[in-house]
Amino acid sequence: MASGIGRRRAAALADSSASYTERRREIRDAAAQVFRAKGYGGTSLGDIAEALGTDRASLYYYVASKEDLFQEVVRDAAEANVRRAEEIRDLDDAAPHKLELLIASVMASYAEYYPYLFVYIQEELNRLGDGKSGWAREMRKINRRFDDAVIGIVQSGMDDGSIRAVSPARVVAYGIIGMLNWTHRWYRDKDGTLPDAGAIGAAFADTLVNGLRNNPA
Amino acid sequence: MASGIGRRRAAALADSSASYTERRREIRDAAAQVFRAKGYGGTSLGDIAEALGTDRASLYYYVASKEDLFQEVVRDAAEANVRRAEEIRDLDDAAPHKLELLIASVMASYAEYYPYLFVYIQEELNRLGDGKSGWAREMRKINRRFDDAVIGIVQSGMDDGSIRAVSPARVVAYGIIGMLNWTHRWYRDKDGTLPDAGAIGAAFADTLVNGLRNNPA
Repeated sequence: MASGIGRRRAAALADSSASYTERRREIRDAAAQVFRAKGYGGTSLGDIAEALGTDRASLYYYVASKEDLFQEVVRDAAEANVRRAEEIRDLDDAAPHKLELLIASVMASYAEYYPYLFVYIQEELNRLGDGKSGWAREMRKINRRFDDAVIGIVQSGMDDGSIRAVSPARVVAYGIIGMLNWTHRWYRDKDGTLPDAGAIGAAFADTLVNGLRNNPA
Repeated sequence: MASGIGRRRAAALADSSASYTERRREIRDAAAQVFRAKGYGGTSLGDIAEALGTDRASLYYYVASKEDLFQEVVRDAAEANVRRAEEIRDLDDAAPHKLELLIASVMASYAEYYPYLFVYIQEELNRLGDGKSGWAREMRKINRRFDDAVIGIVQSGMDDGSIRAVSPARVVAYGIIGMLNWTHRWYRDKDGTLPDAGAIGAAFADTLVNGLRNNPA
C-alpha cells in the first residue's frame, strides 16, 4: 500500500492539477505553523493532519513524510528570504541603507520562522556539506545566492565609496551574515530579558552600518 | 592488557610526578601540531607517536585514546583563549580599545589553532548541549566565561559612555562573538583570495569598534 500511495502521489505531483497544488500549499502552510509551535522533533504528521482537520492517511496522498514536508517548508522560507535579499540588492538606493534593510529583513524572517528555521540552521547545515540529495543541493544554491546578494550590496557600496573598504567585500559580508546567523545559538536560551528579533536586528544594523558607512568629510 | 595499562595510567596521573606531567605536556604539544597539520579525522595515535619518535604502545601509558588527547588539546586552547579575554577585560584601558584587542586575540587564537579548533567548534559544540561528560561540562563553563568576559567589556563601555548603548550589552557581545565564530564556516573554503586571520580580525575590529564607539561630541 505504501508504494501504491507513493505511485499515486508521484502521478498527482507530475500532473499537478490546480486543486492538488492548492491542497499541497495548504498542507505546507499548516505544517509551517505546527513546526513553528512544536518544533521539528515535537511534530508528527498526525499533528499536522489534526491542524488541517483531516487524518494522517489522507496526507500521504500529498506528502511522503514529515521530513519531506519539513524540507519543503524550510526551502520555501529560505527562498522567500533570498528573494527579499535580492530585491533589496536591486533597489535604487544607497548601499548603507540597503544593508539596514537587509539586516532587518533577515531578522524579521528569523522571527517569523522561529524556531524551525533555526533548527534547520543548527542541525541541517552541517549535513549540507556532504548532502547529495536534491534538497541539499538546492539549499546550498539558495545559501550561495543569499551570500552573493549580501556581497553584492557591500561591493557596490565599496565601489561608490559609501561603504568603507575595510577588507574585501566578501569578508565584510560574511561578518554580517555571521552576526545574524549566530543568533540561533543564543536567541532561544533567552530568559525574557532579551529584546525581540526586530530590536536585535535594529541594534546590529545600527552598529554595522555606522561602522561601515563612509561619512562625507 | 588494555585495562592493565589503564590502571597504570590512572595511578601515574593521580601520582602526577614531575616527569610524568612533563611527558604528557610534550605529547599534548606534539598532538596539537599533528591535529593542526592533518586535521582530527586524518590523525591517528600512530602519527602522534611518530612525531614524538616513539611508538603507539608507549603512548598508552600517558593517554587513553585519540579522542581524549583531542579533547585535552582543545580545552587547553579554549582555556588559553578565555584567560587572554579575561586579562583584556581586566586591563586599565578604554572599552573600545579592549574590544579591538579582544577581536585580534580571538582571531590570532583561531589562526594558531586552525584547523582543529574549528573542527571542534563545528562538530563538537552541537554535542555540548546534551553532553554530560566532565569535558563537555568544562567546555560549557569555559564558553560561558568567554561570553562573560566579552559582555563585561561591552557593559563597562556602556557604563562609562565610551560604547553606544545600541541594545543590552549581551546582545552586542553575542553579535561580536557570532561574527568571530562564524568564520569557521567560510574561512576554510578559501581559494587563496581571502586575507589571513589577522587581517580579518583587524577588519572586524575596525567595523565594530567604529560602529560602537561613542565619539566625544
